[in-house]
Amino acid sequence: MSLSWEAIAEKAQQHRDATIALVQPPIPDITNLPLDSTPIPATILTAEEISITESEPTDLVNRLSTGALTSTTVTNAFLRRAGLAQKLVNCVTELLPSTALARAAFLDDYLKKNGKPIGPLHGLPISVKEHIGMEGLTLNAGFVAWHDRVADANAHILDILVDAGAVLYVRTTEPQTLMHLETDNNLYGVTVNPFNRNLSPGGSSGGEGALIGLRGSCLGIGSDIGGSIRSPAANNGLYGLRPTSYRLPLEGLSATMLGQDHIVPVVGPMTTSLSGIKLFMKTLIDAKPWLREHSLLPFPWRTDPQLAVLPSGNKKLKVGIMYDDGVVKPHPPITRALRSVAVKLGKVKGVEIVEWEPYKHDLAWSIISTAYFGDGGEEESAAVDASGEPWRPLSTFILKENPGVKKLSVTEIWSLNMAKYDYKSKYAKRWVESGIDVLLCPVGPGVAPAHDTSKYWGYTAQWNLLDYPGLVVPIDKVDEQLDVKDIGYEARNEKDKWNHELYDADKYRNAPISLQLVANRYQDEMLIEAGEYILEKIGAPWVKYV
Amino acid sequence: MSLSWEAIAEKAQQHRDATIALVQPPIPDITNLPLDSTPIPATILTAEEISITESEPTDLVNRLSTGALTSTTVTNAFLRRAGLAQKLVNCVTELLPSTALARAAFLDDYLKKNGKPIGPLHGLPISVKEHIGMEGLTLNAGFVAWHDRVADANAHILDILVDAGAVLYVRTTEPQTLMHLETDNNLYGVTVNPFNRNLSPGGSSGGEGALIGLRGSCLGIGSDIGGSIRSPAANNGLYGLRPTSYRLPLEGLSATMLGQDHIVPVVGPMTTSLSGIKLFMKTLIDAKPWLREHSLLPFPWRTDPQLAVLPSGNKKLKVGIMYDDGVVKPHPPITRALRSVAVKLGKVKGVEIVEWEPYKHDLAWSIISTAYFGDGGEEESAAVDASGEPWRPLSTFILKENPGVKKLSVTEIWSLNMAKYDYKSKYAKRWVESGIDVLLCPVGPGVAPAHDTSKYWGYTAQWNLLDYPGLVVPIDKVDEQLDVKDIGYEARNEKDKWNHELYDADKYRNAPISLQLVANRYQDEMLIEAGEYILEKIGAPWVKYV
Repeated sequence: MSLSWEAIAEKAQQHRDATIALVQPPIPDITNLPLDSTPIPATILTAEEISITESEPTDLVNRLSTGALTSTTVTNAFLRRAGLAQKLVNCVTELLPSTALARAAFLDDYLKKNGKPIGPLHGLPISVKEHIGMEGLTLNAGFVAWHDRVADANAHILDILVDAGAVLYVRTTEPQTLMHLETDNNLYGVTVNPFNRNLSPGGSSGGEGALIGLRGSCLGIGSDIGGSIRSPAANNGLYGLRPTSYRLPLEGLSATMLGQDHIVPVVGPMTTSLSGIKLFMKTLIDAKPWLREHSLLPFPWRTDPQLAVLPSGNKKLKVGIMYDDGVVKPHPPITRALRSVAVKLGKVKGVEIVEWEPYKHDLAWSIISTAYFGDGGEEESAAVDASGEPWRPLSTFILKENPGVKKLSVTEIWSLNMAKYDYKSKYAKRWVESGIDVLLCPVGPGVAPAHDTSKYWGYTAQWNLLDYPGLVVPIDKVDEQLDVKDIGYEARNEKDKWNHELYDADKYRNAPISLQLVANRYQDEMLIEAGEYILEKIGAPWVKYV
Repeated sequence: MSLSWEAIAEKAQQHRDATIALVQPPIPDITNLPLDSTPIPATILTAEEISITESEPTDLVNRLSTGALTSTTVTNAFLRRAGLAQKLVNCVTELLPSTALARAAFLDDYLKKNGKPIGPLHGLPISVKEHIGMEGLTLNAGFVAWHDRVADANAHILDILVDAGAVLYVRTTEPQTLMHLETDNNLYGVTVNPFNRNLSPGGSSGGEGALIGLRGSCLGIGSDIGGSIRSPAANNGLYGLRPTSYRLPLEGLSATMLGQDHIVPVVGPMTTSLSGIKLFMKTLIDAKPWLREHSLLPFPWRTDPQLAVLPSGNKKLKVGIMYDDGVVKPHPPITRALRSVAVKLGKVKGVEIVEWEPYKHDLAWSIISTAYFGDGGEEESAAVDASGEPWRPLSTFILKENPGVKKLSVTEIWSLNMAKYDYKSKYAKRWVESGIDVLLCPVGPGVAPAHDTSKYWGYTAQWNLLDYPGLVVPIDKVDEQLDVKDIGYEARNEKDKWNHELYDADKYRNAPISLQLVANRYQDEMLIEAGEYILEKIGAPWVKYV
């Protein structure tokens, strides 16, 4: 490698900034970056740009499909707001103004000529995490050494979304190794949280999280192998879905450890409404992606009602609530949100609540944290070391300080598979016997983490191990008066102690509070319906984020 | 181990014979075993026993459910014929006369008391391959060293079938290691083909194949990781289905290499009619086995028509035909059957035929034969060696002479996964682009093999690698006049030469000729419908086997 890692990073950032400079009218630089970035767009963008970018995806698609809005107008508004988001929270790897506006113009023309939209996403700008390949563009996956990798074709998922009418206009940041629940790498630096820059937007799809949190996008694509969609959705007041595996296309994503199939990643939506989640899922599955990608399951997206709740209360939605996974007690804002939701749900005739007793979530983490890295983390480590870039603290945490990382033999892999199978089997038995439809639980051990402190993955990785779909929904925001630290708490273990000591209400000021709904495998459709039902009944979210 | 392997085998056989001796009226011993065993039952059993045991499963269930037949009568008839089958072709590990007749009596009583059947299989005797666990009974999986392993519960699949009304009355043989396409082990000896004892019934579910071929059962359970349902179905003139994976329950089966998930086994039906296959599949999937076994997919068995064929010919069934996989040319009977079917199908208005060009089936074998044994075959070898029993020739073939067997590192496993993924992806692309609904192809490189000669798995293992469902249908029988050897044939490679040299029409006298229909993943329902349609149109099978 002829260039130093610093020089490569500088080039990457120059390229990013040059793409932002192309946006018209130009986006001013922001001096004196505020703790809370969310009020800034209203001071810079036009009223029309604000209105468009704060609309949710199905609303935009409705207006784009009838010609009430042009894709050119909408795309330019999102380009402007995404460029601004970059200047505020450092969430973008590049904008694509030329190709996006050309595509938008084509779609506007198509609608005029044909009198009908090209597809279910006609004209809608969509944001994309960098490691999801776009033809001719970088595919660095957060590694400096991979800075010159270029995708030779669009990822399968993008082909479908583009065919459906989407406009690709921005690519977003991700962490070194892709295995942080935050977003920082040596190419583009640290992505910060729009609601409080001392906090992380989460990760690994934290560029998406921060961008959509600031409404520089209304619908984006993340990926999740341990929480990477759900963490940033939760930390930025968004809706996010980690679907069950083998429903959405994965071909064309870049990462290390290809062929590792013990724990498989999934892609999924991050967006500003539950209808946006449904639009995304239905569009992709209606395209029959299994005809191109053989590993996907050829089962349609179900649109008939999956939830059998009767207003009479004769058929109820049975909701499990897990306040604590028994390993790391969540911070006060999470516990307050769960309790408040439980109180409200308790009054709903169509809902039955039961407390969920977690089953050995510490064992689940020990299995999954070993299963991720059966090669002892060699591939990940080599990809970091290849450029001489420094190890980010959370890369060190997950690869070097993680006792689960072991180089395994084939026989040991098989034993691990059996341990995984046995654990999943026992968990599934409890789930089915409980009769719950969905489980309401934390998305993490707290709200958006302070930088470099996301060291407990249990609340999300649990569901990757079980391959249960997880839906993140926004509920509230931190309230320093209500969310006081329990100073008398006695930690149960080192991880619990670490998490407890992190907390201080003031530190997490203004952070969104989100919760996770989980369903059994392949109940993705029912899960979303349950989310709609619950949010409607409890009137959440209880704050306006943007 | 205190006993020699010979002494253990003798005990196992004594136990088997003792269970047969309990059947009333007693089954006579057969002296001068004939080449073709199929005429024998008619000379020994009563007319009623013959009539019952030669009925197909749905017909029996219909009569059992209305009380037109009692389960006691039916069970005893099958016990008699299974005991006789053992004396003819050595396909049984034990009969279960006491428990089966007690169960049958209970079901007869249930019907009388309740006026309705207990479930969709009310009173139907079902045969079971030995490594599918039955509470309190052996679970040796063909290894002498495992002779004293006992199942502590019924396998999941048996629980469902029993709940549905099945009667378990016989357990059947399987080969040492379970990894032969024939059926011979050192506990029970060699199972032979009912149509020609110089031939094998195939394997590994060859005990089932021979038993059902002789109508000692009308519906049995096999398992398949490389052809083990399809080979014995084909070699005994039966219908057999290897379903797509993760639809039918696997918990409670015994085998080595648990946790090996690169190529997963499946269970499936072997039976005397296509309606029997549907009955089996629908009964199991209607029971929602995914609620107990977390790895199974929660998708129902589709009963609405999946095949869009119009009598007008406006919407056709597109059938690919593969005469030869490009590696090993099938023997003359197979080629003749394929050609004859093609001629008949060519005249059907609702059918379009295209020739299928196989894509690197040799590569597929090299991938799957390595993926089976990532530990270098250590577990299999150790299980053979533990008792001091001799290696069967086909165990030596698949484990010691197989160049695919290598002890891999985790990184090599991941590379192999990528090679597998890439191959499957390319194959799937060709499949989808061809537009075929089903592929008609050989089940093996010939009809039932002479003993110890099944050394080419390509025609079945291909579809295990791709995880495409494969349905075996009976077509014809060997005709020494028509199926003459092509003495001028020049072999393309060593395997082709081996197979070519095996052939001699006279050697395969009386052997059933079967063909395989294959569909894309999870098109199991459509595949069966296509089979029904094709067999009806061509009037196959063209011979009566029993």
